[in-house]
Amino acid sequence: MKPELGVCYYPEHWAEAQWKEDAAKMVQSGITWVRIGEFAWSRMEPAPGQLELEWLDRAIEVLGTAGLKVVLGTPTTTPPRWMIAKHPDMLAVDAEGNPRKFGSRRHYCFSHEGYRDESARITKIVAQRYGQNPYVAAWQTDNEYGCHDTTLSYSDAAKVAFRAWCAKRYGDIATLNEAWGNVFWSMAYSSFDDLELPNLTVTEPNPAHVLAFRKFSSDQVVVFNRVQTEILRANTDADLIHNYMGRILDFDHFDVGEDLDVASWDSYPLGFMWDRMELSDAHRARYLRQGDPDMQAFHHDLYRAVGKGRWWIMEQQPGPVNWAPYNPAPLPGMVALWSLEAVAHGAEVVSYFRWRQAPFGQEQHHAGLQTPDGRDAPGLGEASKVAQILTQLGEVQTLQSEVAIVFDYPSDWAWNTQPQGADFNYFRLVFSAYRALRRAGLSVDIVNSKSRDFSGYKAVLAPGLATLEPSLVEAISQAGALAVLGPRTGAITEEFSIPQSGRPSVPHLDVMVDLVETLPPNAGRAVKDGGKVDFWLEKLSGSAPVLLALEDGSPVLMGQGDRWYLGGFADDTAWDRIVMKIALQAGLATCVMPGGLRRRMLGDLEVLINYEAEPMQLGEQQIAGCGIVIRRGDEVIAESDFSTA
Amino acid sequence: MKPELGVCYYPEHWAEAQWKEDAAKMVQSGITWVRIGEFAWSRMEPAPGQLELEWLDRAIEVLGTAGLKVVLGTPTTTPPRWMIAKHPDMLAVDAEGNPRKFGSRRHYCFSHEGYRDESARITKIVAQRYGQNPYVAAWQTDNEYGCHDTTLSYSDAAKVAFRAWCAKRYGDIATLNEAWGNVFWSMAYSSFDDLELPNLTVTEPNPAHVLAFRKFSSDQVVVFNRVQTEILRANTDADLIHNYMGRILDFDHFDVGEDLDVASWDSYPLGFMWDRMELSDAHRARYLRQGDPDMQAFHHDLYRAVGKGRWWIMEQQPGPVNWAPYNPAPLPGMVALWSLEAVAHGAEVVSYFRWRQAPFGQEQHHAGLQTPDGRDAPGLGEASKVAQILTQLGEVQTLQSEVAIVFDYPSDWAWNTQPQGADFNYFRLVFSAYRALRRAGLSVDIVNSKSRDFSGYKAVLAPGLATLEPSLVEAISQAGALAVLGPRTGAITEEFSIPQSGRPSVPHLDVMVDLVETLPPNAGRAVKDGGKVDFWLEKLSGSAPVLLALEDGSPVLMGQGDRWYLGGFADDTAWDRIVMKIALQAGLATCVMPGGLRRRMLGDLEVLINYEAEPMQLGEQQIAGCGIVIRRGDEVIAESDFSTA
Amino acid sequence: MKPELGVCYYPEHWAEAQWKEDAAKMVQSGITWVRIGEFAWSRMEPAPGQLELEWLDRAIEVLGTAGLKVVLGTPTTTPPRWMIAKHPDMLAVDAEGNPRKFGSRRHYCFSHEGYRDESARITKIVAQRYGQNPYVAAWQTDNEYGCHDTTLSYSDAAKVAFRAWCAKRYGDIATLNEAWGNVFWSMAYSSFDDLELPNLTVTEPNPAHVLAFRKFSSDQVVVFNRVQTEILRANTDADLIHNYMGRILDFDHFDVGEDLDVASWDSYPLGFMWDRMELSDAHRARYLRQGDPDMQAFHHDLYRAVGKGRWWIMEQQPGPVNWAPYNPAPLPGMVALWSLEAVAHGAEVVSYFRWRQAPFGQEQHHAGLQTPDGRDAPGLGEASKVAQILTQLGEVQTLQSEVAIVFDYPSDWAWNTQPQGADFNYFRLVFSAYRALRRAGLSVDIVNSKSRDFSGYKAVLAPGLATLEPSLVEAISQAGALAVLGPRTGAITEEFSIPQSGRPSVPHLDVMVDLVETLPPNAGRAVKDGGKVDFWLEKLSGSAPVLLALEDGSPVLMGQGDRWYLGGFADDTAWDRIVMKIALQAGLATCVMPGGLRRRMLGDLEVLINYEAEPMQLGEQQIAGCGIVIRRGDEVIAESDFSTA
Repeated sequence: MKPELGVCYYPEHWAEAQWKEDAAKMVQSGITWVRIGEFAWSRMEPAPGQLELEWLDRAIEVLGTAGLKVVLGTPTTTPPRWMIAKHPDMLAVDAEGNPRKFGSRRHYCFSHEGYRDESARITKIVAQRYGQNPYVAAWQTDNEYGCHDTTLSYSDAAKVAFRAWCAKRYGDIATLNEAWGNVFWSMAYSSFDDLELPNLTVTEPNPAHVLAFRKFSSDQVVVFNRVQTEILRANTDADLIHNYMGRILDFDHFDVGEDLDVASWDSYPLGFMWDRMELSDAHRARYLRQGDPDMQAFHHDLYRAVGKGRWWIMEQQPGPVNWAPYNPAPLPGMVALWSLEAVAHGAEVVSYFRWRQAPFGQEQHHAGLQTPDGRDAPGLGEASKVAQILTQLGEVQTLQSEVAIVFDYPSDWAWNTQPQGADFNYFRLVFSAYRALRRAGLSVDIVNSKSRDFSGYKAVLAPGLATLEPSLVEAISQAGALAVLGPRTGAITEEFSIPQSGRPSVPHLDVMVDLVETLPPNAGRAVKDGGKVDFWLEKLSGSAPVLLALEDGSPVLMGQGDRWYLGGFADDTAWDRIVMKIALQAGLATCVMPGGLRRRMLGDLEVLINYEAEPMQLGEQQIAGCGIVIRRGDEVIAESDFSTA
Repeated sequence: MKPELGVCYYPEHWAEAQWKEDAAKMVQSGITWVRIGEFAWSRMEPAPGQLELEWLDRAIEVLGTAGLKVVLGTPTTTPPRWMIAKHPDMLAVDAEGNPRKFGSRRHYCFSHEGYRDESARITKIVAQRYGQNPYVAAWQTDNEYGCHDTTLSYSDAAKVAFRAWCAKRYGDIATLNEAWGNVFWSMAYSSFDDLELPNLTVTEPNPAHVLAFRKFSSDQVVVFNRVQTEILRANTDADLIHNYMGRILDFDHFDVGEDLDVASWDSYPLGFMWDRMELSDAHRARYLRQGDPDMQAFHHDLYRAVGKGRWWIMEQQPGPVNWAPYNPAPLPGMVALWSLEAVAHGAEVVSYFRWRQAPFGQEQHHAGLQTPDGRDAPGLGEASKVAQILTQLGEVQTLQSEVAIVFDYPSDWAWNTQPQGADFNYFRLVFSAYRALRRAGLSVDIVNSKSRDFSGYKAVLAPGLATLEPSLVEAISQAGALAVLGPRTGAITEEFSIPQSGRPSVPHLDVMVDLVETLPPNAGRAVKDGGKVDFWLEKLSGSAPVLLALEDGSPVLMGQGDRWYLGGFADDTAWDRIVMKIALQAGLATCVMPGGLRRRMLGDLEVLINYEAEPMQLGEQQIAGCGIVIRRGDEVIAESDFSTA
Repeated sequence: MKPELGVCYYPEHWAEAQWKEDAAKMVQSGITWVRIGEFAWSRMEPAPGQLELEWLDRAIEVLGTAGLKVVLGTPTTTPPRWMIAKHPDMLAVDAEGNPRKFGSRRHYCFSHEGYRDESARITKIVAQRYGQNPYVAAWQTDNEYGCHDTTLSYSDAAKVAFRAWCAKRYGDIATLNEAWGNVFWSMAYSSFDDLELPNLTVTEPNPAHVLAFRKFSSDQVVVFNRVQTEILRANTDADLIHNYMGRILDFDHFDVGEDLDVASWDSYPLGFMWDRMELSDAHRARYLRQGDPDMQAFHHDLYRAVGKGRWWIMEQQPGPVNWAPYNPAPLPGMVALWSLEAVAHGAEVVSYFRWRQAPFGQEQHHAGLQTPDGRDAPGLGEASKVAQILTQLGEVQTLQSEVAIVFDYPSDWAWNTQPQGADFNYFRLVFSAYRALRRAGLSVDIVNSKSRDFSGYKAVLAPGLATLEPSLVEAISQAGALAVLGPRTGAITEEFSIPQSGRPSVPHLDVMVDLVETLPPNAGRAVKDGGKVDFWLEKLSGSAPVLLALEDGSPVLMGQGDRWYLGGFADDTAWDRIVMKIALQAGLATCVMPGGLRRRMLGDLEVLINYEAEPMQLGEQQIAGCGIVIRRGDEVIAESDFSTA
């Protein structure tokens, strides 16, 4: 595979005369892909049925003849104003019961059948028109499903669909009552038509009810997307892609990914530090202009799994953005670093958002590769540098890692439904494990919790997996890998109740959770010889050997053969110790990474990535601040260093 | 009286085959009471009019024949789903105007007459069926009135009822206008039908309007409860009980208590520290696994007053709960300590919540005395130890204390309506006085503000009493006790206006409040020789001698004979000094308690209660960490010490 | 001009027998003006059409014959309850879609035509009745427009009016679509009837949409007020006044002011520190009982501009108020200080709120000059002292200052719409510049951004001006003054888009903003030789000389001749350095003010104002804590010193 660069472009925002010049400059900068169309419905169909696609024909022609491959987006993320007039009840409804009005984007409920039909109609129109267009080399469905908290809707359409979903899942209402434990607090229903959505209840609703609603809501995204992919498949052989977001977990990306060829995601490292990460002030200050050293890598690995090996960055932050509470500028070198790190994790394409900064609309203060008045923005120079390095690298390949983390969207829904402790969060837990593996210099794969093929792995971690199917542990064992489970693994059934058998109930591992405590900040319990357990602590019993214990002697990590169980939310120090034990047991070669330095293997290439503003040293190798070194053994193949620019 | 133990049990949650074994184990553990039924309406009447009570007959039979006395709950806290279909407007409405939907509990408006009739109907059914049942030895009405902020409802039913309540109270609308001062801001009404509920106004509503609504809302709880007690009285001679909560003050518990035989409350010491107390982080950390040293005692004393001397703990936390932001486990000994402290304050029964942890529903992570899979949880061992000690103690009696605090629910409503300073709160103020008395080793009684019998007391404190009736001061005087009033005592009339006479207007006490200041945190004013005044400071004048003054010389405590007035919210140090002055004046024997050590007299028994994790010393007596010592003079009668367990 | 004192009085709150005595005492205290009537609609017209004005006739007669000049308020801020029955849809609607109910004040939507007619009707009634009354010497329209967030309403009335406003502004919908950039996210409308108000959208609405709505909302206030002024003008020659608030910027006060003779404002120095200023805890603690040293002065200068030179304080805080989170008492001397400071800034009248503290209603804990039971409150003595000093001073005059700040309400709306960084705020920015000028001892004028007459100024600052018209810079140049622009000046067009020309695009100043960063707290960038840039930082390029640079060498202040551009939000230290540079360049005589000492020139009088609790020294002159010294050269003319009182 030869990684390429792309860019997002909005021909409808610019005078037609400008297109050709823009396309030429893209090509000249080393860009080979261009995404268009995903917000342009009002230009494609300004009034119901009145199609105006000639401008799009011409735009594709101009871009294609310039040498660019086009990703064409279905425009369903922004239905025009007339659509809401036609389907007034298509708007999603928030948890407080307010319709979420027209005037920005994503203003639709996934469950509204009228809108789903409209989405099919416009998809069919563009698919038929451009499915065989030689320049259209890939398709994007919709845009950023779930962004702005749009997966969950409490509309009447959602209520009707949820009732049908439950009827299908449970068959009869007695089964549902039994499954949800509705005898508790007299919550039994006598008919599926009795079901309401679980918002605005007096105190918290039944977690089984919420979890069912979360699964239903995820399924609605899958169905909505599938309507489009089926139409596209019938009209094109080009790759189908969706652009996911960072840490949006409200729908099961693996399920959506089943219907697509490639996963892509929109990476905004500086913005993400503010609105979706648990970070100390000191950490935010240290990486203010670089982004967190592990957040991007985690998503690269996650979406590589979602894409079954194939993934892109569809939108790469190219400078300051507009939507975070604070929007600093990336340090020189960071745009190149983010791009090359993605390549190191196997990205096929890194596409910048956007070519030229918009002078109007909600994102007018979001940097592009060009300023609004057409000058080169700092990101463009870095993109060109990346293009050069990619040429230098030529063919690369991504190999399987030796260690994997199991990722499971429903676990996030479950633990959000009942966190039990305010600081417990599934993503946070999984990410803390991922970070520790990275600090040990390991390349990591993320694996779908529904997978049963773990061949090739030496160790597999499955922290916080809400429901544990014995077949998972067996599959890991059969692959010859060490299974590291817990904390909170297997704590509930699929219907959110406590398993009858006690838990975690791992075959051939005599460990039992007797009690759970959740702890406030600064009340972590010390682990003997270093580190502590924060937020979540299980009291473990059983005959399995104790591998790590608290200072008071109570076990925190127990293991028997290839099955280990961790009974708490380890802090960084404790995780580092656990990772070293795992490595020793599983035969993994670690290499401790100082500070914000990271590494990732890309075939036989070692990519060293320095998130620090200052130069870092690994052995004899120096890596510039905000710089990248790509080497084969001791031979440096390529380098990104803007520290003196 | 011989204190006993009880437990909450849900036969409807378990296979019938299990009941007998459970009952046997309860008895074996020293438990003699079992509460059932309060959430079981959907099992009693699965469809309108379709009664199914045979299972309940059998459950009572099994429990009773095992030797347990049954507390039977009316199930009105959880009306079934069909009830909402029948009475769609019975749901309470929150202050933002949203109906509070079915799907958890307490989903009804106290003012809805249709639901009140349904409540009477089901109460009559169970009362007639079990009123003479030999095993049903007590009744609980509904469950935790006011929990989840359910006293106040802004529904149409409440609006209609409020208008009628006002019409009855004021007679004609001109009287209401005059009483509320509606000339202010042109708020006059021309008819009771003009009245709206005081939510969603542009800026704050008239405090007189709010206070009237608060009194109305409290009365609605009283009326709702009385409908049940009248039916129960007609059918049984057993004790009638309600289980109140901690620091829920939205209705007047004394008024509800008038219709009942026994007050009970649900005590969750660890949970309460997080969601209903003003505590420093250091205090929360210190007592994280023990609970606050005074919060339980305060409620014991409050509910002893509400129960006119007779009170229970209906639900005692037995381990970690699920509903607080953080849910640590009690330290070993604490379940026993909490139980025995309740006994020291005169509890007739301490009943644990619940027998076996539920594997489903909202509280599945709430510990019981048994784990969900049927093993003994740590709480059970401590309960058994308590049972042994109770046997050891035999008959005990609660004597009147020498010092009392007047408690007044309407004052809480008044000061919540207009706190004037963000940190002023009635409960907080009263509790600060209570704590100081406890730190001085005093046993305290709490007295209904409507009481006029203070005989036997040497000192009576009435801080923050919104409206001061001269008869209260006279009654205290007649009893020969020192009356300590203020701050903010007598600051408003019953209709929330400033008294014409100036204030506090205490007969025979020449003290006048000229001005009030409220202060932000860390801006307290220093008291001469130690301590300070926080949050609330009155400028006092008058000829009464100054007993305590600020450093700038302005009086803060003034007193004439047996009438003292305190003009500020004292901090702990200042309160300790004030308590010492009171003790000296009133002839109270104090004993300074170190740290989290407390004591309470139970007849001639002295109960020493150690909320510290570490052992504490009082004179020559050592008390284990989380331990209890019960002694008569120097003779130790019983001890609870789990420190080496 | 001879400054006078006034007071706010509510005859409808008191027995008629009391009026005469009250009036006599006012006069005796040195008060010459009395404001009445603004909340009395329900007494003027208790039922629709049933006028009862005789009491008001008598009240005016009593006050007038006592020697007081009456300011009569139109009562439209508090429509009676029957009005809402008549016009149920006249209530404003909040951003969450809830009607803002009757029960306090300001319960009307500015766009409701039915209510606008009612407002005209009652205004006409009182104007005709009292327009020629010899005692009615001035009129107040309504009360505190915009208070309690009442400028913006999301009602149906507002929606209809907004559509009409847009139709008038843009002519056809294509023009609106083009102006707002509605091609972005397919937001185009096909008719003005498609327009919704910009609330409850899925993510942020188009900033152009919001800004248009903000301008519309401001215009609605202007129109509402104008309806009254036109009627009043037809019936009286007395001055027309409105009483504005502190830091309420939701409507353009300059526009409202065009229809009035005098601007007035309601000054509550202690309350304002809590709910509308960005202050450190230390600053709040230091000035807890004095108020911020610059907040009042800023508003004095602002409203002097709004009143085209003529302004009053209509409501002056006289003691503790009731509505702030914390309500301490002013230190002795502060009521006098606030009053005299207003005089120093040119106030014609300082009127206290209110004569006697109300014993009922929402403000019963708001101090007056009299206690509710009729004793003198501390404020009265200070007011009398002020009256003496005013007599002593006799005629005074306000001269133009040498330095001006341009103030622009639409800039506040723009930057609230898209702050880009959470800590950027227009008022905060302008105020930081104002403070720095004051710390340099300069008297400052504030100038309407629509003004083009800058003659007489040596320097004019225009920070944060959203849209920069070249004519403004030219006008400043023509006046021979130094223009100091930036940061964020000229950053958007009137329709909230980025100017095509790049920015700031100042003629004859080669400075270009290449990039904007916003910074979190504690991440400011150091300025070479002292100070730093916080919150907002622009990357500047161009050939203009660099006057101040960051430590990394990047320019932060650039200037060419009489045009300077500042590229960041300077902290206090940086602002002090910038002011010194400005003073040097423009020839301003500065005098550094220590701590909370301030000064203001009043003609040839220098007024020294000490906001510190402790005495301060300026050269050889000592000023008492909370004191004022008025001197001509070295000769002290008058002094306010309550430090020994």
